[in-house]
Amino acid sequence: MNQLSQQVREAIRTLQHCHATCLSMAMTHCLEMGGEHARPQHLRLMLDCAGFCALTADALGRKSQFHNRLAELCAEVCETCEQDCAALGDMEECVEACRACARQCKEIARLDHAEILAMASRSPPSAARPVGN
Amino acid sequence: MNQLSQQVREAIRTLQHCHATCLSMAMTHCLEMGGEHARPQHLRLMLDCAGFCALTADALGRKSQFHNRLAELCAEVCETCEQDCAALGDMEECVEACRACARQCKEIARLDHAEILAMASRSPPSAARPVGN
Amino acid sequence: MNQLSQQVREAIRTLQHCHATCLSMAMTHCLEMGGEHARPQHLRLMLDCAGFCALTADALGRKSQFHNRLAELCAEVCETCEQDCAALGDMEECVEACRACARQCKEIARLDHAEILAMASRSPPSAARPVGN
Amino acid sequence: MNQLSQQVREAIRTLQHCHATCLSMAMTHCLEMGGEHARPQHLRLMLDCAGFCALTADALGRKSQFHNRLAELCAEVCETCEQDCAALGDMEECVEACRACARQCKEIARLDHAEILAMASRSPPSAARPVGN
Repeated sequence: MNQLSQQVREAIRTLQHCHATCLSMAMTHCLEMGGEHARPQHLRLMLDCAGFCALTADALGRKSQFHNRLAELCAEVCETCEQDCAALGDMEECVEACRACARQCKEIARLDHAEILAMASRSPPSAARPVGN
Repeated sequence: MNQLSQQVREAIRTLQHCHATCLSMAMTHCLEMGGEHARPQHLRLMLDCAGFCALTADALGRKSQFHNRLAELCAEVCETCEQDCAALGDMEECVEACRACARQCKEIARLDHAEILAMASRSPPSAARPVGN
Repeated sequence: MNQLSQQVREAIRTLQHCHATCLSMAMTHCLEMGGEHARPQHLRLMLDCAGFCALTADALGRKSQFHNRLAELCAEVCETCEQDCAALGDMEECVEACRACARQCKEIARLDHAEILAMASRSPPSAARPVGN
Repeated sequence: MNQLSQQVREAIRTLQHCHATCLSMAMTHCLEMGGEHARPQHLRLMLDCAGFCALTADALGRKSQFHNRLAELCAEVCETCEQDCAALGDMEECVEACRACARQCKEIARLDHAEILAMASRSPPSAARPVGN
């Protein structure tokens, strides 16, 4: 990832954390608690959120020209998931992961593609790795 | 998938075909031809398209409340990929898969979530599988 | 996908159908039925199966050197899922998709990587694209 | 992820880092360098590695009964990718991510499914989150 700016790397980590948290909470905590936590529409939203986060992280990793459109939609999915989890209760880890991710996605959505590419070219491969990195 | 309407099932198949075609063409045909076919931005677009199609198919499969927003964006990605492939030449299979997929995504984007759910409930589990389906 | 043999293309389609069926049945039919169908370990197995099928299809699409090892494991996951679904009842669509997919995976697991590459070269890049391969 | 042991959480993070590093290095650094770095079989291996890591992380997140079989195969893919990158040169970030990931995968492959479930049940939902966590 040596061509990606610090901001983009950080966003990828935040997206991956949200992906893992939503997927894992849905498939362990929620299913095992049952009741409202296992409501179909709640679980679908959790897995939607996990899926959007994974695709957005990958899109950033490959300097996708659609990164900002996708990040904007991903922010909305994360916020919806955050609200559903907060209303349900006993989902703090998920609430926090979604909130942090929505915030990062909105920042990313503001960058245009030229900026993503420019950031990369500001630290070109040859200059950025002089001592074996 | 017995709760999904015929239209949604058909859309999932079209999306999956586009995913497999873009991924496979990028990682075999394009890389092996080299030259313009292996231009970084072309390959990123091909994999973007594959990624959007996979997420959209999954979102439809789980009756996601974000299916139409995602399908709208996916249609745009497919059209961009179709144009890039057509301009490049020697990419007919990909051009056709992207064109068909963009068309289906636009149809899906028009359905609201209530319609997706309604279609399902019109053929409820208990009624739809009386003889072992 | 114009470099892939008919057998590999057919396997990709079967894997994708099994992926979509397991994901969709889990997130609609099983969750909505509740009871034994929504048992955590059953739903995890369904999503495991969907995940293995997607990775195996992608690995075939890019002529992965690990395709046969993965296909062997995928066959086992599909058979486990088939048995769990058959024991549960009211899961015919999933049982059939898993059974067909396990069969295809076993065929694929028998092909070595040279054969995958050779199949491709039987419709060689050089014939389709005489300059620049 | 509040039901997963510290070891499993750490493994998920390592797998996700390896996924993002392989995908991103392949689609930016390698493609832009060209030459040996853009050799088809190298790029396929990088994306294979990214794909295996993502599936293994997800399998751990949902306490998959196939986690150890998959982790074993994933370790092998990571080692193969590590060696290919080391031989190629100028791929240090990828070499390190793959090496760390292979090591973690081998540890995980040693745990049986009962241990994964036991770890979870040692910190049961109700006991682990007494004050809204």
